[in-house]
Amino acid sequence: MAHIHLIVPTVTEFNSLPLVEPLKQFGLTFSQSFITNGPASIESEFDELLAAPDVVLRAMEAEANGAEAAIVLCMGNPGVAQAREAVKIPVLGPGETAMHHAAMLGHKFSVIPTLARRRPTYEHHARHYGLESRLASVRPANVPVLEIEQNPKVFDVLLERARAAVEQDHADVLILGCIGFSGLDRRLEGALRERGHDVPVIDALPLTVLTAATLVRSGLRHAKNAYPYPPEKIYKGYEFPKRKE
Amino acid sequence: MAHIHLIVPTVTEFNSLPLVEPLKQFGLTFSQSFITNGPASIESEFDELLAAPDVVLRAMEAEANGAEAAIVLCMGNPGVAQAREAVKIPVLGPGETAMHHAAMLGHKFSVIPTLARRRPTYEHHARHYGLESRLASVRPANVPVLEIEQNPKVFDVLLERARAAVEQDHADVLILGCIGFSGLDRRLEGALRERGHDVPVIDALPLTVLTAATLVRSGLRHAKNAYPYPPEKIYKGYEFPKRKE
Amino acid sequence: MAHIHLIVPTVTEFNSLPLVEPLKQFGLTFSQSFITNGPASIESEFDELLAAPDVVLRAMEAEANGAEAAIVLCMGNPGVAQAREAVKIPVLGPGETAMHHAAMLGHKFSVIPTLARRRPTYEHHARHYGLESRLASVRPANVPVLEIEQNPKVFDVLLERARAAVEQDHADVLILGCIGFSGLDRRLEGALRERGHDVPVIDALPLTVLTAATLVRSGLRHAKNAYPYPPEKIYKGYEFPKRKE
Amino acid sequence: MAHIHLIVPTVTEFNSLPLVEPLKQFGLTFSQSFITNGPASIESEFDELLAAPDVVLRAMEAEANGAEAAIVLCMGNPGVAQAREAVKIPVLGPGETAMHHAAMLGHKFSVIPTLARRRPTYEHHARHYGLESRLASVRPANVPVLEIEQNPKVFDVLLERARAAVEQDHADVLILGCIGFSGLDRRLEGALRERGHDVPVIDALPLTVLTAATLVRSGLRHAKNAYPYPPEKIYKGYEFPKRKE
Amino acid sequence: MAHIHLIVPTVTEFNSLPLVEPLKQFGLTFSQSFITNGPASIESEFDELLAAPDVVLRAMEAEANGAEAAIVLCMGNPGVAQAREAVKIPVLGPGETAMHHAAMLGHKFSVIPTLARRRPTYEHHARHYGLESRLASVRPANVPVLEIEQNPKVFDVLLERARAAVEQDHADVLILGCIGFSGLDRRLEGALRERGHDVPVIDALPLTVLTAATLVRSGLRHAKNAYPYPPEKIYKGYEFPKRKE
Amino acid sequence: MAHIHLIVPTVTEFNSLPLVEPLKQFGLTFSQSFITNGPASIESEFDELLAAPDVVLRAMEAEANGAEAAIVLCMGNPGVAQAREAVKIPVLGPGETAMHHAAMLGHKFSVIPTLARRRPTYEHHARHYGLESRLASVRPANVPVLEIEQNPKVFDVLLERARAAVEQDHADVLILGCIGFSGLDRRLEGALRERGHDVPVIDALPLTVLTAATLVRSGLRHAKNAYPYPPEKIYKGYEFPKRKE
Repeated sequence: MAHIHLIVPTVTEFNSLPLVEPLKQFGLTFSQSFITNGPASIESEFDELLAAPDVVLRAMEAEANGAEAAIVLCMGNPGVAQAREAVKIPVLGPGETAMHHAAMLGHKFSVIPTLARRRPTYEHHARHYGLESRLASVRPANVPVLEIEQNPKVFDVLLERARAAVEQDHADVLILGCIGFSGLDRRLEGALRERGHDVPVIDALPLTVLTAATLVRSGLRHAKNAYPYPPEKIYKGYEFPKRKE
Repeated sequence: MAHIHLIVPTVTEFNSLPLVEPLKQFGLTFSQSFITNGPASIESEFDELLAAPDVVLRAMEAEANGAEAAIVLCMGNPGVAQAREAVKIPVLGPGETAMHHAAMLGHKFSVIPTLARRRPTYEHHARHYGLESRLASVRPANVPVLEIEQNPKVFDVLLERARAAVEQDHADVLILGCIGFSGLDRRLEGALRERGHDVPVIDALPLTVLTAATLVRSGLRHAKNAYPYPPEKIYKGYEFPKRKE
Repeated sequence: MAHIHLIVPTVTEFNSLPLVEPLKQFGLTFSQSFITNGPASIESEFDELLAAPDVVLRAMEAEANGAEAAIVLCMGNPGVAQAREAVKIPVLGPGETAMHHAAMLGHKFSVIPTLARRRPTYEHHARHYGLESRLASVRPANVPVLEIEQNPKVFDVLLERARAAVEQDHADVLILGCIGFSGLDRRLEGALRERGHDVPVIDALPLTVLTAATLVRSGLRHAKNAYPYPPEKIYKGYEFPKRKE
Repeated sequence: MAHIHLIVPTVTEFNSLPLVEPLKQFGLTFSQSFITNGPASIESEFDELLAAPDVVLRAMEAEANGAEAAIVLCMGNPGVAQAREAVKIPVLGPGETAMHHAAMLGHKFSVIPTLARRRPTYEHHARHYGLESRLASVRPANVPVLEIEQNPKVFDVLLERARAAVEQDHADVLILGCIGFSGLDRRLEGALRERGHDVPVIDALPLTVLTAATLVRSGLRHAKNAYPYPPEKIYKGYEFPKRKE
Repeated sequence: MAHIHLIVPTVTEFNSLPLVEPLKQFGLTFSQSFITNGPASIESEFDELLAAPDVVLRAMEAEANGAEAAIVLCMGNPGVAQAREAVKIPVLGPGETAMHHAAMLGHKFSVIPTLARRRPTYEHHARHYGLESRLASVRPANVPVLEIEQNPKVFDVLLERARAAVEQDHADVLILGCIGFSGLDRRLEGALRERGHDVPVIDALPLTVLTAATLVRSGLRHAKNAYPYPPEKIYKGYEFPKRKE
Repeated sequence: MAHIHLIVPTVTEFNSLPLVEPLKQFGLTFSQSFITNGPASIESEFDELLAAPDVVLRAMEAEANGAEAAIVLCMGNPGVAQAREAVKIPVLGPGETAMHHAAMLGHKFSVIPTLARRRPTYEHHARHYGLESRLASVRPANVPVLEIEQNPKVFDVLLERARAAVEQDHADVLILGCIGFSGLDRRLEGALRERGHDVPVIDALPLTVLTAATLVRSGLRHAKNAYPYPPEKIYKGYEFPKRKE
């Protein structure tokens, strides 16, 4: 049993466990935590920043509690790099995981995020991961995160963006650019198939959970040479659990 | 149970099943096939080419026999792109899978292949996958594939190359560049740790098997938009099973 | 007299000698061979793979027979890299030769291949050669190779694609992306000139023949450091002539 | 009089005003603030993260108090991107400013940061700014930030790293990679000149102050299209001043 | 008082001093010179070349006359690299300065030059400076330099190009691609703001003047390691003042 | 008979015709011209600039006199881009031609120029041509151009640089970085072969002549879309022959 911890990086206490319930059959067990300080949703680099300190704290607690890997449930991967410094277990961001798998499944991928303002963020991510030559486009849905659920046109908008990405930008893999779109992947694939396109649509959450399990099971984790522990020093206003070495 | 098929791309009929035996506990079942025509080992692009047609044939047969994913057991990924055109199940190459995971586990990775002549091959692969900015170096062991097993100094050589990659080229993740080095990953990590380096060493075989399982379990496969079936036409000298659509 | 050998990488036994007849005046002599095993046309990476082993064999035979350079008559360059390993004479692919010359003749080039599925292939080639910053676009004609000759609209289609490449993608050099389009270069240049565009159109076959002659005459050939002979080993199912060293 | 606000992103309340005193003659006036929550020094991405929320807050206060530009006094630019979202006045990071000016003053620059662990950070920055082709190397001094002042060998170490960067990596511009090295620029240039190297050494603090003044005086500021205000929403645990629009 | 010398690289003796008059309040003093041999306007690489020798001569004279920095008033930066070799004071080109500042003010910038033929020039510049990943597009106005002043539609054309750059190419910073457009920056920003775009428009002339002042005031100049004096030798047909060392 | 014109871009009136004499057997006829104004040798961007206006003039005269292609005899390609604007016949620079052919003959090439100060020039050229990923290194000989002939150690120095490029930088093709090294290519190849390296050494002059002939014979020339004629205007101090259209 690989123990995967899910960190929900918003103060909404959105329960993500039902989303990963179907993955338990693969020998996985889950825990979950929320941030206490931070935004209600993540739609800017400002939001990412305010979510991140608590994300790191949750990762440290999860490691202390025996989690074997931690996942931050936001495509912007807030706090992921810093949490990797703070702990030894693998910490995964779904945005990074999705982009690398997209690169393995086709030649060019597109990301469909919620808002147009996220375009530079995902372009920077692609460059940071080294995958800018594989990024076909970022095609924002223009739907705010907290309106996804009530908005009856979300699927139509996603399909329109997906077609533009495939037909105009030559993407052959698509990434749903918000965890809030989770669960629409197969339906979108089907609608594209009806229009003649055989294109995988990546719902990053299950993919990232299974990738975390792969790392645990193959004994791999992030290099401490790459993400060394922060040097000991005085911090004001933050309290962190004692490091588990 | 995810059914993963292993294709051994040499005519030596090397039995790879014992290598993946420990992965069965994760709900995996394995089959295996060998090429009939081709080289005894893969050490050149010439060798890769001569192995590849049979690799594609084996992938087609595996799909016909119900395999849910196929893996080609060579870091050069011979026949992988063409097999993706010929079948619908995911076909994975350990070289590609290892490079993308290496990019996720640190900032820069190095590959340690058998021979110096493989350096350009791995540099081209990194560029092809879009990961050239993450490749620190290729540090060949200078040990021919078929001498790995009898050569008592292989581990020492790998350690020397690994240290050079970490200390001189600033690699923080290492990839064993030949399936023949399989099983030396943890030992090499340990020897590096004694020298002050916390650096993951990737043995691509188990990693690729688990990644194949991840794709199967998350319902993902290669885009047919990216790897369409070859157009029907006359082929002389080759016989392929009827396509399963 | 430089002796250039032409390898036709399809089983159609298409006679290419008339195409190069006009080049004999420049002190060139030609021989030709066909593959025995492989596809009737090359329209996929699968086709390229199945053509390539025989291409390498033909290159080895050509070298044994005194050819001073060999050319593979397909823009996808099947078997070219492997043949360079197997022989010492220069082996040229028209796709690679055309791209480098296109880069010398203008700022950005576009390729017009037969089928949309070839787009990623040519994009990968450009990256492999290091020329991705010079590739304006790939604008497929959507005409299968074996229909080129009978299709009365081929020229109109090429002109439409050429105009799109020049006017929308800012290409200032064009490459005919299939040897089957050979001979349409000057006519296409003329039609573009009538529309105000002074843009060279590259028919890769004569260009590659003359480039091969240039190498022969300036005493240059591919580096064995780059393409070393394959190590001696057992091959099953393939028989190659003894190497000429 | 251009009013430039300096944000010291550590809890040490280090007084930076004396460092900029000589710049007042150029018609500049300065204010300064410190972070309340965060680290005593910045030596990791973890430290950057914990400093950043208060940096953004300080930038918002500075704008409310009439500052015309704000500068974050750390080469890692913590909170700079997020502050640009939160305010309308230009917010500058000395790391970014130094790299672009270095690119204008020569062909390749090297950065000399405090610690080896900062190498990937500066490599990522160079990529993020688009300047990776101009980065010759990162040559860490291996001196912790809070030991710079007492360490009598700091200058010798910097000179050794500078020479290595110039002589081995072909850098022709150098960037002092920590505000703590401020003031050593001219002395280091002189020592290099004695060894035959005419190479500018960038002390990023005065350069960034003057660049901020340039933006103010030429009426330029960061694009709100690039750094839009964060969407209004609930934030827990953070309190921000009302936005000045 | 920083003394900035302006070199007008055309034979029109266009008086540029009124353009920089408003910058005198920042403690700057200006001198100006014209080329004697060369073109009436700069619209081709041919024009740039013919202007450049005299530009270098003027830079040498300016240095001899006590100028602390020199600026060449053309976005193509003719003679800038060579003048940097010939003198020790900073020599700035407005095209280079504008691109680096554009990269600091947003994520992607576009250039609006006079003529379509300048597109490759600015694309090459962006690559040369290392900023190709930040260049969104080049959107030529199609107005010859010497017609700018009389053409009543220039502003409308600039606005149309600016909107295309922002709305279609996702530019968030704009560069006026000709010194002849000087002074239209704020008006263009305003017209874009009315259309919902908050995008800085860079008029390179004042920005470059202030950047030159920044270099002078922070004691920075171009590396002689990067731009060494030309070796002494015989030159026919050119006469240069004795070098000031 | 293809008529190739050679432009010697120095005022030394060095007779280059004997160097191309052996190429006459391939149906080529040569003419030659010198510059009147400019430097005695080309060792800086300053030298390149002062040579270039006369180079363009010579190209225009050559075209008027019936030359079918023109070559500028300097690896720095001075005036080549501008001459392409001024004439319609192909104008080739040996530096550009050599780099593209080097890229075709191996995986990575190194350039051995005369002086260390030329390193950035060749790095910029490689980037300009799009070939930066193929450039292994620039290894200057540190021999001034005009001392090549008398310096008895030139060959030893070249061999030392060549070995460093091959053994340390993994170059598998070498380019002699000065026309003054012309004729040492085969000897250098031989000396490298004795040390176990099979690496082509490119003497750019004959290669460029034959490439020019290839363009003439295949009816290709530079795109006027890429290099349009300079717009008509007033030029002072320069006189150019009437354009041949």
